[in-house]
Amino acid sequence: MRMYDLIIKKRNGEELTTEEINFFVDNYTKGNIPDYQVSALLMAIFFQKMNARETADLTMAMVHSGDMLDLSKIEGIKVDKHSTGGVGDTTTLVLTPMVAALGIPVAKMSGRGLGHTGGTIDKLESFHGFSVEISEEQFINNVNTIKIAVNGQTPDLAPADKKLYALRDVTGTVDNLSLISSSIMSKKIASGADAIVLDVKVGDGAFMKTFEDAKALGTAMVNIGKNVGRNTVAVISDMDQPLGFAIGNALEVKEAIDTLKGNGPKDLLELCLTLGSNMVVLAKKASTVEEAKEMLLGTIKDGSALAKFKEFIKAQGGNVEQVEDTDKLAKAKYIVPVKSPKAGYISKIHAQNIGLVAMELGAGRATKEDVIDLAVGIVLDKKRGEKVAAGDVIAYVHANDEKKAEKAVNDILNNYEITEEYKNEIPLVYDVIR
Amino acid sequence: MRMYDLIIKKRNGEELTTEEINFFVDNYTKGNIPDYQVSALLMAIFFQKMNARETADLTMAMVHSGDMLDLSKIEGIKVDKHSTGGVGDTTTLVLTPMVAALGIPVAKMSGRGLGHTGGTIDKLESFHGFSVEISEEQFINNVNTIKIAVNGQTPDLAPADKKLYALRDVTGTVDNLSLISSSIMSKKIASGADAIVLDVKVGDGAFMKTFEDAKALGTAMVNIGKNVGRNTVAVISDMDQPLGFAIGNALEVKEAIDTLKGNGPKDLLELCLTLGSNMVVLAKKASTVEEAKEMLLGTIKDGSALAKFKEFIKAQGGNVEQVEDTDKLAKAKYIVPVKSPKAGYISKIHAQNIGLVAMELGAGRATKEDVIDLAVGIVLDKKRGEKVAAGDVIAYVHANDEKKAEKAVNDILNNYEITEEYKNEIPLVYDVIR
Repeated sequence: MRMYDLIIKKRNGEELTTEEINFFVDNYTKGNIPDYQVSALLMAIFFQKMNARETADLTMAMVHSGDMLDLSKIEGIKVDKHSTGGVGDTTTLVLTPMVAALGIPVAKMSGRGLGHTGGTIDKLESFHGFSVEISEEQFINNVNTIKIAVNGQTPDLAPADKKLYALRDVTGTVDNLSLISSSIMSKKIASGADAIVLDVKVGDGAFMKTFEDAKALGTAMVNIGKNVGRNTVAVISDMDQPLGFAIGNALEVKEAIDTLKGNGPKDLLELCLTLGSNMVVLAKKASTVEEAKEMLLGTIKDGSALAKFKEFIKAQGGNVEQVEDTDKLAKAKYIVPVKSPKAGYISKIHAQNIGLVAMELGAGRATKEDVIDLAVGIVLDKKRGEKVAAGDVIAYVHANDEKKAEKAVNDILNNYEITEEYKNEIPLVYDVIR
Repeated sequence: MRMYDLIIKKRNGEELTTEEINFFVDNYTKGNIPDYQVSALLMAIFFQKMNARETADLTMAMVHSGDMLDLSKIEGIKVDKHSTGGVGDTTTLVLTPMVAALGIPVAKMSGRGLGHTGGTIDKLESFHGFSVEISEEQFINNVNTIKIAVNGQTPDLAPADKKLYALRDVTGTVDNLSLISSSIMSKKIASGADAIVLDVKVGDGAFMKTFEDAKALGTAMVNIGKNVGRNTVAVISDMDQPLGFAIGNALEVKEAIDTLKGNGPKDLLELCLTLGSNMVVLAKKASTVEEAKEMLLGTIKDGSALAKFKEFIKAQGGNVEQVEDTDKLAKAKYIVPVKSPKAGYISKIHAQNIGLVAMELGAGRATKEDVIDLAVGIVLDKKRGEKVAAGDVIAYVHANDEKKAEKAVNDILNNYEITEEYKNEIPLVYDVIR
């Protein structure tokens, strides 16, 4: 088999066989195929696409390119959840204790990553003493005893995906549904998921800007799941404005705890219930999402979700007092209100730019080397569709630097659109693909 | 400027600017841009094409990537001729002395190359003592005094083309009109041509298998010529059967000399007159091709073309006796007739395969390291459209190895089609594009 022939075949619009896809992924990972042939193939794939079978084969070839997490010692169906990324997305911190409180095992590998705020791992480090690097033994033991554990991503999962993504990133071959969906799914499957719930974000603050694109990506991933025996559900949700109110690390942790206490933002809770209910159904703990939603709401009402969260923080060495009293989380020196310059309706909040403002305050990393400031960020006070008077506070900047705070206030104002009339037609959940 | 942005631009179907094309060719040649980005761009070009302006810019960027041959010390308009390659193509050896005999300067850079037989340089080495590595000074001096010189290709012409071609060859990005045409034209322009006559072959033994494809390539090259100020004419000619009768090095030299003596194959002479007359017109030595053809025929009738050929061979140190008596050229040990197994009409001669038979006999190189046997090859006796009886000789194998001769006889029979009826509808010259 020659890589050259695979390039020509795909270039000419033909289908690659399972053997050919395995050959290419395996040999590229081993360094037997040069980057320049792979980038040519990737560009050919960009133009000629891959069908569902090829995409599933590519996913599994990447899964098998390195270690797979062996979660066989964990009892029950392991359901993982993945978000394609947005601004102020605190769902994982809320969802996982709710689901675990229902006895469903949550064995989550999570990353730090680049972006507006840190990853789940960074946010959890808001708790003094919390360890994100527990041993595999402790990880499995924790899941079996308290049903929940979160660990930093191990480096050997799906190395082919890492290598391919790095190449795609510099050769203009990122934007292809098969390549995007197989990349996401390979990581989830390699980390041991039996079933997967995907939160595909759509809008200004998301990778996918239109519903059509988000639906196509969700469908592609659900199809991969079907083809490789991992039940997968994709929820298409709004990211045209930030989710919830908080954007920042400790700020989002506080918001998650508030939500578990029953005092969270409505949109955050609703999305958690939608994602969570699908997780519960996939874990076969409920037969309908309606039933599952009731069960999940129950974990908030009876306090079991909050108790589970404390149990989880404690089990990984974190300071539970910070859960009980969120004032003990890191706090910024300056809290500066952002005031509306005029009366009207909030008609748009440019999510992407608001995220960048949070990053500039220090909440996120632009490069791997950047150090995150857990305390800083933004807390929105008014969201899309709300009526404001001139001088009303629409958001608060949490900063540790006065100059940065000043700039952030300005930047936030530039990214709020306030109009005389507004009719909110954007749903929180667009669609659920099964 | 970033290579990444150029890839995205072309991928999205946009036009690259002159500056962008110069940036990419210049920096790739210097090693500042990695192969994997260039192969992605090439694949994007394969799908999105380049327009005439981009193609002309690419050509000139490749021309300027290295040395250009300075032929300014040669008086008159330098017209070069290039063939896209075929089987038994002896036109250069016939054409150049005819044109030079009319006082038109022929300053030809030629290669060895891979293929069914050697290149022009190899064929000229059939003359004992002939030097294909003369100094630039002697080269220019010879052209100014006797109007003709042929030299081996210098290594520094259009290095970008060499580097790009090597990459295209292994990444499935050869088959694109802009890339093919700019590659050919850049080499011609870098070797100092003021005007160019292209012989674009079409058919079984050619790179282009259909008239449409050949015409598109010819048109692309003529357009480059127009855009960069080098008058270019493309002749589309038949390569569905070998040209002339001889396929081999010394065998083709003999055939060329026979043609200069007025005893050559009709098709070879006709094609030489078509190509040559266009060269004469481009050199402004005649105002119509008809007039030019008469002048060229005159050089055969009055012996001046043959005299020019001798002068040329002598000037580069070759043994002129071998021109006067072609029996003194290298000869094969075995000359084996190939006989028709049945009566009928020769309806097809598979040119490509016949060429391979010659190569297997030793007439050509499969790899750079192979040594050519100047004596061996094939001389066809019957060509397309001719009537044969069973047992008639249709070709002769010239070999230095009995086993190879035997195999060649068989292979030739397998590549002649003899049918009961035949009406030859394939022209020698399909079209001339100006």
